[in-house]
Amino acid sequence: MIIVMKNGAQPEQVEVVRQHLKRAGMDVHTSVGRERTLLGVIGDVRGISTEAIESLPGVERALRILEPYKLAGRRLKTDPTVVEVGGVKIGGPEVVLMAGPCAVEGLEMLRATATAAREAGISVLRGGAFKPRTSPYSFQGLGREGLEFLARVRAEVGLPVVTEVMAPDQIELVADHADMLQIGARNMQNFNLLQEVGRSRKPVMLKRGMMSSVDEWLQAAEYVLAYGNTQVVLCERGIRTFETHTRNTLDISAIPTVKRLSHLPVIVDPSHGTGRRDLVIPMAMAAVAAGADGVMVEAHPNPEKALSDGAQSLDLAQLRELATQVGLVAEAVGRALHEPPRP
Amino acid sequence: MIIVMKNGAQPEQVEVVRQHLKRAGMDVHTSVGRERTLLGVIGDVRGISTEAIESLPGVERALRILEPYKLAGRRLKTDPTVVEVGGVKIGGPEVVLMAGPCAVEGLEMLRATATAAREAGISVLRGGAFKPRTSPYSFQGLGREGLEFLARVRAEVGLPVVTEVMAPDQIELVADHADMLQIGARNMQNFNLLQEVGRSRKPVMLKRGMMSSVDEWLQAAEYVLAYGNTQVVLCERGIRTFETHTRNTLDISAIPTVKRLSHLPVIVDPSHGTGRRDLVIPMAMAAVAAGADGVMVEAHPNPEKALSDGAQSLDLAQLRELATQVGLVAEAVGRALHEPPRP
Amino acid sequence: MIIVMKNGAQPEQVEVVRQHLKRAGMDVHTSVGRERTLLGVIGDVRGISTEAIESLPGVERALRILEPYKLAGRRLKTDPTVVEVGGVKIGGPEVVLMAGPCAVEGLEMLRATATAAREAGISVLRGGAFKPRTSPYSFQGLGREGLEFLARVRAEVGLPVVTEVMAPDQIELVADHADMLQIGARNMQNFNLLQEVGRSRKPVMLKRGMMSSVDEWLQAAEYVLAYGNTQVVLCERGIRTFETHTRNTLDISAIPTVKRLSHLPVIVDPSHGTGRRDLVIPMAMAAVAAGADGVMVEAHPNPEKALSDGAQSLDLAQLRELATQVGLVAEAVGRALHEPPRP
Amino acid sequence: MIIVMKNGAQPEQVEVVRQHLKRAGMDVHTSVGRERTLLGVIGDVRGISTEAIESLPGVERALRILEPYKLAGRRLKTDPTVVEVGGVKIGGPEVVLMAGPCAVEGLEMLRATATAAREAGISVLRGGAFKPRTSPYSFQGLGREGLEFLARVRAEVGLPVVTEVMAPDQIELVADHADMLQIGARNMQNFNLLQEVGRSRKPVMLKRGMMSSVDEWLQAAEYVLAYGNTQVVLCERGIRTFETHTRNTLDISAIPTVKRLSHLPVIVDPSHGTGRRDLVIPMAMAAVAAGADGVMVEAHPNPEKALSDGAQSLDLAQLRELATQVGLVAEAVGRALHEPPRP
Repeated sequence: MIIVMKNGAQPEQVEVVRQHLKRAGMDVHTSVGRERTLLGVIGDVRGISTEAIESLPGVERALRILEPYKLAGRRLKTDPTVVEVGGVKIGGPEVVLMAGPCAVEGLEMLRATATAAREAGISVLRGGAFKPRTSPYSFQGLGREGLEFLARVRAEVGLPVVTEVMAPDQIELVADHADMLQIGARNMQNFNLLQEVGRSRKPVMLKRGMMSSVDEWLQAAEYVLAYGNTQVVLCERGIRTFETHTRNTLDISAIPTVKRLSHLPVIVDPSHGTGRRDLVIPMAMAAVAAGADGVMVEAHPNPEKALSDGAQSLDLAQLRELATQVGLVAEAVGRALHEPPRP
Repeated sequence: MIIVMKNGAQPEQVEVVRQHLKRAGMDVHTSVGRERTLLGVIGDVRGISTEAIESLPGVERALRILEPYKLAGRRLKTDPTVVEVGGVKIGGPEVVLMAGPCAVEGLEMLRATATAAREAGISVLRGGAFKPRTSPYSFQGLGREGLEFLARVRAEVGLPVVTEVMAPDQIELVADHADMLQIGARNMQNFNLLQEVGRSRKPVMLKRGMMSSVDEWLQAAEYVLAYGNTQVVLCERGIRTFETHTRNTLDISAIPTVKRLSHLPVIVDPSHGTGRRDLVIPMAMAAVAAGADGVMVEAHPNPEKALSDGAQSLDLAQLRELATQVGLVAEAVGRALHEPPRP
Repeated sequence: MIIVMKNGAQPEQVEVVRQHLKRAGMDVHTSVGRERTLLGVIGDVRGISTEAIESLPGVERALRILEPYKLAGRRLKTDPTVVEVGGVKIGGPEVVLMAGPCAVEGLEMLRATATAAREAGISVLRGGAFKPRTSPYSFQGLGREGLEFLARVRAEVGLPVVTEVMAPDQIELVADHADMLQIGARNMQNFNLLQEVGRSRKPVMLKRGMMSSVDEWLQAAEYVLAYGNTQVVLCERGIRTFETHTRNTLDISAIPTVKRLSHLPVIVDPSHGTGRRDLVIPMAMAAVAAGADGVMVEAHPNPEKALSDGAQSLDLAQLRELATQVGLVAEAVGRALHEPPRP
Repeated sequence: MIIVMKNGAQPEQVEVVRQHLKRAGMDVHTSVGRERTLLGVIGDVRGISTEAIESLPGVERALRILEPYKLAGRRLKTDPTVVEVGGVKIGGPEVVLMAGPCAVEGLEMLRATATAAREAGISVLRGGAFKPRTSPYSFQGLGREGLEFLARVRAEVGLPVVTEVMAPDQIELVADHADMLQIGARNMQNFNLLQEVGRSRKPVMLKRGMMSSVDEWLQAAEYVLAYGNTQVVLCERGIRTFETHTRNTLDISAIPTVKRLSHLPVIVDPSHGTGRRDLVIPMAMAAVAAGADGVMVEAHPNPEKALSDGAQSLDLAQLRELATQVGLVAEAVGRALHEPPRP
């Protein structure tokens, strides 16, 4: 951290700042220039608020030099993390496809989707049992019954399962039925939930909040890592902008950005990221071209009958098209599609 | 809801849409124009997704006419809701001032702040015991001890207390020590938490998420109302934009907008909304001029020593200045400041 | 400017940076810390790109300490600038109201609006002759004829006139018919236009671009000032965000922010800033409470017949209400409404 | 356009709306429902403001069904437009690469860049002679001399040239020296400039404004088309969001969105879109995977010495890497790189 004192700051003011930092256990290196005094702060400044420093008299600005996360960053761990989910490796050389219905609506539709998905080359089954819904009057998911359907289809079809957990007291139940715990975008800064999945030993998929910066996203991952769970997959799913043709703006540039900052795998959800079925395949291709480790999409045997988010679900023929097109792009970037695990 | 069929949509496609809506219990009124067919949908469409409709073949667009909330809206309840918090009425003719430290750091500082606040004309004491922090390495609040300090100072100084609750399992504890439960901006769409405070009978202060639309905010309030708790105060605290001089952009226009849409009281938090101490008083004045029912600010006896958010905290002299200036604006709009409750 | 070298940067790399800056005429002060080397750059760095510096090998970050404008800032000129427009002083102790139709549609309506506006206490007449329109098929304004109507009504009613200029070759014509040249939001970074109004001696009203930061806005003002025209009034008119209830989000916090950074007067346009007639008066009141030097609104004798932007125009009764309410807030902040100039 | 009357709107109010529309030459089809009356408007409604309609008494909402552009849309012209620039076809089956310095700094550097670019497989030379700069104190380009260098290198190296035009009175000069006129992002809604390049017969590259919606971008293109120039290439270059790791957020989803809405070619500028050299190649690959017809990047023989935007310029080795990687992705999507034109 570097602290720039105001032009004309008094030596006593400099001393107050120095003492403040010393008390916090920092080393301070003072540099007196012709016009201004600079303080270089050495130590673990991640817990120090730049805003608190800037409120001290005589301080012009406090500037953080290092990124505000440690375990999620590349400084301590340079090799990429590979997260294994029921035999599927996310973050390795192969690109992983995940698909399934937005919400689990019943056993039959889930089985049909999973079977077709596996045939199309999809490696992981997704499906919502607990659904975060903007309106209290919308379908909130089948809950425990949905989890049971997921576990049953997982056993029958042989695909590992990822599904969302919305509250700490659901973690144990969800972990019993699924292979990876999804933290939804709206819960990205639900810090109590992050701590509890951090204490779990299940892999976690952490979606980026639609209003969250890359730094905040990596700090949310840091919560999970700091509580002991190293198996974190990041999922970009679109940020909120002024553009209305798409539901969100899928931030493809976040993929190479995060790859440079962090060792964690990054996948993309173009279904929520665009909200439009016709954009899912081109955006999935773009994501893999930019370096994504996987793609998660919504699929439904009859999208027009879906109880939720039908407008963005692929039908089963489109799912095969997705696998074909993404496979070609994966090859162009020197990768291949991950195969579904052997039953 | 109005559904616009595509130019050239087939009668069978229109029929599929009609049947879909009938199954959901709606009445449908068909209007065949020269170029297009329109369907008017009558009934409680709040649970119907426009996106699901738009995924049906032959549909061009589905347009929601009514706002997607009922209990929070002005349609069923036209008179303003007044929420009473420990003898202080929020949403009535008087403007309520709330102040206190971002985080409760100790008993002495809390007592000093509360005493000075009361003398300055502040009616409600705020202070964080459980603190949502972007970094896992930042000070997370004193927790239970902080709540005990709040309850003790409440008894001594005679100001009702509002403090944040971050997880369902904290509600009972927080409700035992405070008069109003705050839902923070990052938890605005933590639907499990909203349901649980909805089941509580304590007043709730619901902060707007920093990238949540007014409609989403009112739907979050609808969760609380739908689960039985009618005592909801809305708090605008800034939305995220591209501007960097302020930490967020305080959306003053949300105040009159919400006043027209909803009967719930609306207050403003200019401390988090700007992140800059020197903007707190002018923005508090602007909020009251635009119709806000109250203002909540951070105050600290020694802002430069605050463990969190010192850059935006007022010192005690500034707190008096706030009360004076906001009082003058309140009078200009035909209101007055609420007095602190009698001990 | 401060330059932070990377951990492990070579002395030769530091030297390259030093030489780069020396060539640009800067003094450089080197500070070698335990982990990093810092360079303090002294001189007029406003023309130096931080991004160019950051592209040099071994550089971690380049940080600008001073604001990137000089003439528009408070450093060289601390007292507020007062811009006089046909006898009306903008930026002085009094709050100035400006009103008129979005587009001049004809002589009669303009005369009726101006007469009623003057009676209501409005001091400046606004009206568009050249209209920037998103669609090439929309009404583009009456052009030269509209200017003639403005000049004629100015003479008859005795109110100074502000109107938009869209291209350099219109400046002379517009200056012959109006008292202040308006640069619209879409042209805030039309640098050729800024230069040319800078060479003019007419007062300029510079609207903030809906996508422009406060720093960019002040740099746009710097263009006008740097080309010799010191008579600049800034006008906040809303920025683009994700919120859709309002057409833009009026950034009230920009008012006190700019007041601290710059000596130039700041006014607000709540008509374009909200796009909704029912929000114009409360937002005008909020702006003045936050320190605005004036308010500009759209008014029309029959808003429902307006050819453009009728949804946000006040009728003449609402114009009187605006003056009354804003007058009360102005008094609460120790100011008063400017009276219309004597004919 | 569909107009929804308020619940309880009077027949006289419906009649006022009907007459308003009839006067504008529209046909109106009235549909009286149980609760509401709907009006379907038939005719060319592109010049009618929904906001003007919504200001009429009794109107709840006016909803535009058709997109607000005609010549730029797919309705009248379904086959893709191919724009030919000095023998290079943009919008055909081949992907076009364009490169060159942000600003032309001298003849030597331009010649070196162009020669290396051509060898790397680049087909079009870009370079700024007139530079829009946020600060009046930044290098503003070489102007006429820069144009002469461009024309000379074009003749020597055999690559067509695209360069920016900032004002109507520069068009003739720029058109004499270049093959395509670039309209910069800040001028996307400089309507006078759009009209004048519309009257020109040179191909136009229209950059998207950094806070302009896709609809506004296509309406800006409509200006050029409506004034007679059908040779328009669209260029996505990033939109402004809250994320700060990248200078802008490159909106890759705008590519397939525009491809569905319009017949015009779409290219991408990942240099300005990210502001970071290390993101240029992955984002170029993503753009082509999503369907872009070309990529324009900044290149410089010595990026660290560039007078402007060095942080995002590729060096000449990176330019070859770009061509290789984008070529592989182009093949994966069934396309190939356009070859530089034969001298």
